[in-house]
Amino acid sequence: GKSAGGATNNGGGERMKVMRKWIHSVKVGAALVLVSLLYFLDPLYKEVGDDNAIWAIMTVVVIFEFHAGATLSKGMNRVIGTVVGGGLGCLVATTGQKLGGIGNSVIVGLAVFSVAGGATYFRQTHKSNVFDYGVNIFILTFSLVAVSGLRIENVMEIARERLLMILLGFMTCIFTSLFVFPIWASDELHSSLSSRFHQLSTSFQGSVEEYFKSSSDGNMEEEEKEPSSIPQQPVVDDYFRTCEKVLQSKSKDESLVVAARWEPWHGKFGLSYPWDKYKRIGEVVNELAAAILSLKSCLKSPTQAEQTNRESIKEPCQAAAASLAWTIGELGDSICGMRRCNPETSILPELKSARLELSRAATTPFQRGSDKGSDAETLGM
Amino acid sequence: GKSAGGATNNGGGERMKVMRKWIHSVKVGAALVLVSLLYFLDPLYKEVGDDNAIWAIMTVVVIFEFHAGATLSKGMNRVIGTVVGGGLGCLVATTGQKLGGIGNSVIVGLAVFSVAGGATYFRQTHKSNVFDYGVNIFILTFSLVAVSGLRIENVMEIARERLLMILLGFMTCIFTSLFVFPIWASDELHSSLSSRFHQLSTSFQGSVEEYFKSSSDGNMEEEEKEPSSIPQQPVVDDYFRTCEKVLQSKSKDESLVVAARWEPWHGKFGLSYPWDKYKRIGEVVNELAAAILSLKSCLKSPTQAEQTNRESIKEPCQAAAASLAWTIGELGDSICGMRRCNPETSILPELKSARLELSRAATTPFQRGSDKGSDAETLGM
Repeated sequence: GKSAGGATNNGGGERMKVMRKWIHSVKVGAALVLVSLLYFLDPLYKEVGDDNAIWAIMTVVVIFEFHAGATLSKGMNRVIGTVVGGGLGCLVATTGQKLGGIGNSVIVGLAVFSVAGGATYFRQTHKSNVFDYGVNIFILTFSLVAVSGLRIENVMEIARERLLMILLGFMTCIFTSLFVFPIWASDELHSSLSSRFHQLSTSFQGSVEEYFKSSSDGNMEEEEKEPSSIPQQPVVDDYFRTCEKVLQSKSKDESLVVAARWEPWHGKFGLSYPWDKYKRIGEVVNELAAAILSLKSCLKSPTQAEQTNRESIKEPCQAAAASLAWTIGELGDSICGMRRCNPETSILPELKSARLELSRAATTPFQRGSDKGSDAETLGM
Repeated sequence: GKSAGGATNNGGGERMKVMRKWIHSVKVGAALVLVSLLYFLDPLYKEVGDDNAIWAIMTVVVIFEFHAGATLSKGMNRVIGTVVGGGLGCLVATTGQKLGGIGNSVIVGLAVFSVAGGATYFRQTHKSNVFDYGVNIFILTFSLVAVSGLRIENVMEIARERLLMILLGFMTCIFTSLFVFPIWASDELHSSLSSRFHQLSTSFQGSVEEYFKSSSDGNMEEEEKEPSSIPQQPVVDDYFRTCEKVLQSKSKDESLVVAARWEPWHGKFGLSYPWDKYKRIGEVVNELAAAILSLKSCLKSPTQAEQTNRESIKEPCQAAAASLAWTIGELGDSICGMRRCNPETSILPELKSARLELSRAATTPFQRGSDKGSDAETLGM
């Protein structure tokens, strides 16, 4: 029982993950060999030349990401950044060349300082911007082209050739990434979100089970009141660690959404797929994870109920937990299978029965009027 | 009261943040102009040449990060990746050249495919590795050097010159980043961690205050039982949003720790500063944030206590909340000021009084024996 979380499809899922990593690695190697043909084949090399072929290889190494959408996004960033930066750089270079002499140096120096500084400030203030990488490439290309104008006459020509090489590298990546065993960010976003429901469902039900399991164990070998009477603590910790992991998934989600937006033609989804809803559902799942995680301090509290008292609420609590866990899992299933779940016929009866069981637990003999006092307990004191 | 979170030093803190962004931007511009001197000054340009000067500019654009430690880390990655990749590339290139003919192409092609693929697999399986960027640069340099060997005799010479240019760019970055108005990752890590304590303290006390404030408001204009009787909901939501933000800080912490490790000489901290403790404290703070966040579903629950019942536990609850909030703030202060806080004399009395107040609240007339029943409530039902 160590793999508390994704116990649902651990074997196949893990193997698939390793497979995908290998596929990606082979594809990167293949893409690099493909652009290296510029060096391997005489006619191509004579056409292109050493200085420019560098840019094709560099582009492949830098933009080839794990997911097809991320590769597309980075590639588009690189191309747009290069075009805009190169264009502006050519403008500065030719203006400087017209002035000539010391004026040329002054113009170029001022332009590089202010454009690079301004663009860097923009990057700092728009940190999670989708075009962050593009702005970086813009700074790079602008500086290179503007400064080259001081020494080389045909800046335009060089900029054009490099852009062509970058496009070539981009095309190679697109070809290898999208058309040969593509790895879709949209698929991963979808399965990661729905598997989080199952992880939380398992964690929640598991931690409630452990709470009562330890109590029956304790009964067998004479009651102990100490917290050490919870022997399965490591397993419970696993459950809570799953919750912590779920809580950390927001930034990963966001980058997956950015990548998924570039995969609109992808079979499973329509063209106007509502990616933002994934983010919003992710936030709700996060809240759920926080709520389950807050059970941790309750269960570990030294003022926890005595074993006999636990026993008296065991049955209704377990029933309620099972209903809730089933509900969470059902929501995950319906997202996973992309089917509408009918709340009236499936979810609502379970929630009602959970509520009933909870009020049963709350009115068991050893405690009365207990629907208050929870605030104090929730503080983890 | 919109700025629920960092209300402690919002004015000065915000201005400092903007200032630091401008300082960083000016420094990037200055560093770029500095390496551009390779183009501006005749003697330097004659020495270096256009092809190689590119690499100095590229290095500056790519490795100059906001924090000094991050710049150092990326620069070291770039240098090490270039050295190792260039060395291995030279080996493959010269081996291929000895074979000559078609054997050369086969050797180089196979080497690029397998080394790039293997390194990519390594990157995929060690995602949060500190040397991830270095491995990427290794793939780039290796491919460039190995493939160049097919066309150019003096590969070693070219690799050496490029390495020198990269070192020059690195040095420029180090100079500008570390010696002119440095922005330390260690400072940000320190202040961000201690400010999170204050944010949580404010959020916690604030949400408890709101809970009881709305109740006294409600009393004035005849009791309402509906959840809509909590008029200050938006403010409460602000408090919980602060908690959610705190919960998202783990990945930022981790990158700050990586950068801070490169700043060991930094005045405020000793040479063997225990950065890992920041991570561990950050995790505990996360748990605290999750616990406070779980209050959200309690406070918003439609089965919340009636206003009169709230009134009866108002005083002890507020006193307990104040004690707890003070304790959290005190812990933050002691981390911020780097002073040992004596638990026996300062923290413990507050915690004891909080406990006393809570048990007072738990035994107020309208409820008895209420130290159970919290599990049900915590589920957010």
